[in-house]
Amino acid sequence: MKKRHIKNLAAGLIAVFAVACSATQPAPGERYVLVIHGGAGTIRKADMTAEREQAYRETLEEALRTGHKLLQAGSSSLDAVEATIHVLEDSPLFNAGKGAVFTHEGRNELDASIMDGQSGKAGAVAGVRTIRNPISAARAVMEKTEHVMLSGAGADQFAAESGLEIVDPSYFYTPERWQSLQEVLKQDSLKTTGNDSKFGTVGCVALDQQGHLAAGTSTGGMTNKRYGRIGDSPIIGAGTYANKEVGVSCTGWGEFYIRHVVAHDVAALMGYKGLGVTEATEAVIAKVGEAGGDGGIIALDRNGQMSMSFNTEGMYRGAITESGEIVIGIYQP
Amino acid sequence: MKKRHIKNLAAGLIAVFAVACSATQPAPGERYVLVIHGGAGTIRKADMTAEREQAYRETLEEALRTGHKLLQAGSSSLDAVEATIHVLEDSPLFNAGKGAVFTHEGRNELDASIMDGQSGKAGAVAGVRTIRNPISAARAVMEKTEHVMLSGAGADQFAAESGLEIVDPSYFYTPERWQSLQEVLKQDSLKTTGNDSKFGTVGCVALDQQGHLAAGTSTGGMTNKRYGRIGDSPIIGAGTYANKEVGVSCTGWGEFYIRHVVAHDVAALMGYKGLGVTEATEAVIAKVGEAGGDGGIIALDRNGQMSMSFNTEGMYRGAITESGEIVIGIYQP
Repeated sequence: MKKRHIKNLAAGLIAVFAVACSATQPAPGERYVLVIHGGAGTIRKADMTAEREQAYRETLEEALRTGHKLLQAGSSSLDAVEATIHVLEDSPLFNAGKGAVFTHEGRNELDASIMDGQSGKAGAVAGVRTIRNPISAARAVMEKTEHVMLSGAGADQFAAESGLEIVDPSYFYTPERWQSLQEVLKQDSLKTTGNDSKFGTVGCVALDQQGHLAAGTSTGGMTNKRYGRIGDSPIIGAGTYANKEVGVSCTGWGEFYIRHVVAHDVAALMGYKGLGVTEATEAVIAKVGEAGGDGGIIALDRNGQMSMSFNTEGMYRGAITESGEIVIGIYQP
Repeated sequence: MKKRHIKNLAAGLIAVFAVACSATQPAPGERYVLVIHGGAGTIRKADMTAEREQAYRETLEEALRTGHKLLQAGSSSLDAVEATIHVLEDSPLFNAGKGAVFTHEGRNELDASIMDGQSGKAGAVAGVRTIRNPISAARAVMEKTEHVMLSGAGADQFAAESGLEIVDPSYFYTPERWQSLQEVLKQDSLKTTGNDSKFGTVGCVALDQQGHLAAGTSTGGMTNKRYGRIGDSPIIGAGTYANKEVGVSCTGWGEFYIRHVVAHDVAALMGYKGLGVTEATEAVIAKVGEAGGDGGIIALDRNGQMSMSFNTEGMYRGAITESGEIVIGIYQP
């Protein structure tokens, strides 16, 4: 309990002192069309090799270029979100898809959600074990069923019946994530938090040529999670939300994001109080921080203004403008 | 598709003409301390026997009296919500606990969530099969873990380890719900909606002597649901939400409630736009109706003002004031 208290206190202090990296806006006349994150947490330059940092930057750039290319060609924001997240899910660097962390039982249970801001439709899957790209399963739930959220073995079965790519659960094995689980198990067999095992979720918000927004989030959850724990990523309103004004994707300590209904709260502050996208994400991150939680939020509004706010030491993140100008960040600015 | 369209159109018309039953307020100086619902849907006096209506009224009253007694004795709003929902879960009349509907595979998979408005803490379980009172499992998740949401077999296991009452899945068998599944299967083996098989969720909001609010929701979901479908009831922000200003519990076509983040939207309209509890619930029900969804919302604010809004033909509902004055309703007013 003491340790937890200190952690919460530390998170509070970080929240107070964090300089949210959200002021970056494009040159006049330009607008952002795609924003991504690859997880927030204790990401320090001192702990990173040049090669590893390079790998992260290259993958973030590849993801941005993939979505941008689709948007340039007139594809929908939904298509751009799905394709962009595929790049991040297929990389072992992020805690989503291929790089998903392990549960207490040594399995990988993945969550994802997607929302189309224009139609207000949404889809999500939780606790799936055999779907290579959970974000596509979330989209299939949205487009092919009358449901929003499917879970567990039923969601895997649905994905298989929908013709999505099914993989053997061993596809999600990576030595690094396995090692993380062993370390957590050594410390405390029931612990999920207290280190950054809870971070690494990926997400994306896109704005297409029709002015329509979409947002998506995909994750492996927390290392050593048990009991079918579901975090904020597959929950519409918590980890993902989009309407006609703004798209939002979150990463962080999921429980705080659920309690604060973070993604919808950003949209509500904009829609009901008239806050701008930066003010709104910073206000919500501040609430999460005051409660002892940490993580990040990316948001993109219908005018191409974006925000990438976080109260952790770092967040893998990037954005691209209509003309292809890229910003990528990892650490505190 | 045509049928669906007509259904949506009908829902829209109902939404426009519905007289929300939310104007009832107590005598001056009195305040409501407990509000409940037992599901919204096509509930018509013509389809109801006097005995059946009496049974519903008696159970709703018993639930209200149970929670009221605790509140009178100085118990917390959380205790009152849990005990009140137990009465509804233990009755075969409602689609929660004992009276849960059947999935496509002929099982009962229950969902519940609870939120403490004062602390902002929350708990939920989804897709559980052996827990007699899912609302107590939701509370145990909130109080005994660092998580908010547990699902599937893991949630059942957690409940057993927490000492909650575990029952054989056959406990949830009722001939009436089994018959409902057989009828739906005869019509369309893949259909979950289109009749009122999706309704019957129970919920409660309470205000204790300390002025603290809590809200909870419990359901069996939709008859013939498949693929581990999760509705709004276990989702904080969608089916349940509480903060220091208001507590909210929802019932209805869950997918629309998730997309509209209904419970949090009520709180956001009150907190950010200054709407009263009645205005806020009516505004949100109107949005759900415009999108083609139907159902109901109950809400209770910290001043003891309550609202029971719905755009269906009926909603089992009731409220009790501090002094024990009861209102119970079933049909449109």
